[in-house]
Amino acid sequence: MSVKRLARRPIVRLDGAARLEQDDRLTLEEPLEIRLHGEAIAVVMRTPKDDFDLVAGFLLTEGIVRQPADLGLISYCEQAQPPNLKNVIEARLADGVEFDTQRLKRNFYASSSCGICGKASIDHIIAQAQAIDTDFTVSTDFLYALDGKLRQAQEVFAQTGSIHAAGLFDTEGQLLSLREDVGRHNAVDKVIGKLVREGRRPPEKCVLMVSGRTSFEIMQKALVAGIPMVAAVSGPSSLAVDFAREANMTLVGFLRGKRCNVYAGAERIESPDEKQPHSTEEGDSNGEK
Amino acid sequence: MSVKRLARRPIVRLDGAARLEQDDRLTLEEPLEIRLHGEAIAVVMRTPKDDFDLVAGFLLTEGIVRQPADLGLISYCEQAQPPNLKNVIEARLADGVEFDTQRLKRNFYASSSCGICGKASIDHIIAQAQAIDTDFTVSTDFLYALDGKLRQAQEVFAQTGSIHAAGLFDTEGQLLSLREDVGRHNAVDKVIGKLVREGRRPPEKCVLMVSGRTSFEIMQKALVAGIPMVAAVSGPSSLAVDFAREANMTLVGFLRGKRCNVYAGAERIESPDEKQPHSTEEGDSNGEK
Repeated sequence: MSVKRLARRPIVRLDGAARLEQDDRLTLEEPLEIRLHGEAIAVVMRTPKDDFDLVAGFLLTEGIVRQPADLGLISYCEQAQPPNLKNVIEARLADGVEFDTQRLKRNFYASSSCGICGKASIDHIIAQAQAIDTDFTVSTDFLYALDGKLRQAQEVFAQTGSIHAAGLFDTEGQLLSLREDVGRHNAVDKVIGKLVREGRRPPEKCVLMVSGRTSFEIMQKALVAGIPMVAAVSGPSSLAVDFAREANMTLVGFLRGKRCNVYAGAERIESPDEKQPHSTEEGDSNGEK
Repeated sequence: MSVKRLARRPIVRLDGAARLEQDDRLTLEEPLEIRLHGEAIAVVMRTPKDDFDLVAGFLLTEGIVRQPADLGLISYCEQAQPPNLKNVIEARLADGVEFDTQRLKRNFYASSSCGICGKASIDHIIAQAQAIDTDFTVSTDFLYALDGKLRQAQEVFAQTGSIHAAGLFDTEGQLLSLREDVGRHNAVDKVIGKLVREGRRPPEKCVLMVSGRTSFEIMQKALVAGIPMVAAVSGPSSLAVDFAREANMTLVGFLRGKRCNVYAGAERIESPDEKQPHSTEEGDSNGEK
């Protein structure tokens, strides 16, 4: 089975003062709805490949199926419409096998009513939260300093090496909120929640810096809170990038030392010399929107 | 507010042929149940600290609260029983604010009926899945080779730097199943699901190697599938370690080069020379169970 796991996207690569437009390959991320005998029991964000394995493993490790022999047919849902033909999977138990409906209630995401392709998921969120409409720029030096500031302010990481951090900075580089958690999403919720409990939202111009990767859900949380720029130490998924572009957000990844990749909204980042050889004039037409 | 975010646990540190018993500090992980006007709307696994921030941020970023002013009182649930006094939080909306119950259905874990402290969560899973009851040993050299084998077999990682991998090895070091995904849990489900679809479970003696951190949920999935040993490139949470000990599993972390930490079940790992100076005789009594 040949399935695409990588997505190609135009990016701007920043390296010190240099600014290069090029293509980058990203890990594909798409939602998958799992149905059991016609009933939607879970939506997981996953990389599309080996999806029948994912469904079979999920059913076993979540205790719905006790043993391999309890598993019946796994198939793509026949009622699914393009472009989500492969994003809804129907599983059946073997004849005579019953399952405990209580278990189904324990752990699962309820079905999304927003459609089940990445594009529909993005459109749904943006329709409710509105795209970013804030013009501002930060310098590359501002960006390059963020990771160090986050690490300096972090207490636990140095001690355990296994906690996620998120920090919210204003465009002067001041840290507004820093939180840590074993879960990436939780760290972001805590950072935002600190402000909410003070009766305020993140300022219109600010940057959220996260220690790990960026996924659809991180971008969703940032947009709903009104944060226009997200920077991360590791890379984004394809859906995080598509989300950022649709929502007019700036998304930076692999921010380490004086280097990073800009996956969306590069116009908000100003290089020291915008007129150098690798500047935008000769980029391909997909380079910026 | 002084809240414990680190947990101390006895570990066995392997460094080449050396074997040292010592204490290690781990990131704390505990479940948190979020209630809105008395109704449980989510259970998240988190590091206990800044929990009111987490709840406030969660309510905003998930769209339940539109603006900070919509948020009412956040408090610990008064009906909670020890030891989970701080693990159930009750939020209220400001007077006159209504929320969209449809939204609640979109994204949230249903409430767990298994109690809401880590210990109860562990007991609940083990009662249903049974603890591991398999005696076997692997050598340190076997362990040290796993990371290289996983990376070698991985196709996507080298290209994007942002995908998780999981691999299942038998005790001969043969790779039985390798899968990648943007989500750690998905990679584990896919690895197990490959076997399930072939009509079999993981063999009684095997090792699951994962590229990232280990959390409660990874250990849960491994146990339910009957996998006795989990090894990871990064570190575990406190609850992952407690889970492994209760379930009689072996848990290895920070497996890099010829080094690793063994957080549970070190008796399944044989060092080349078991009689060296740092051996168990002089360890503290908590060193092994």
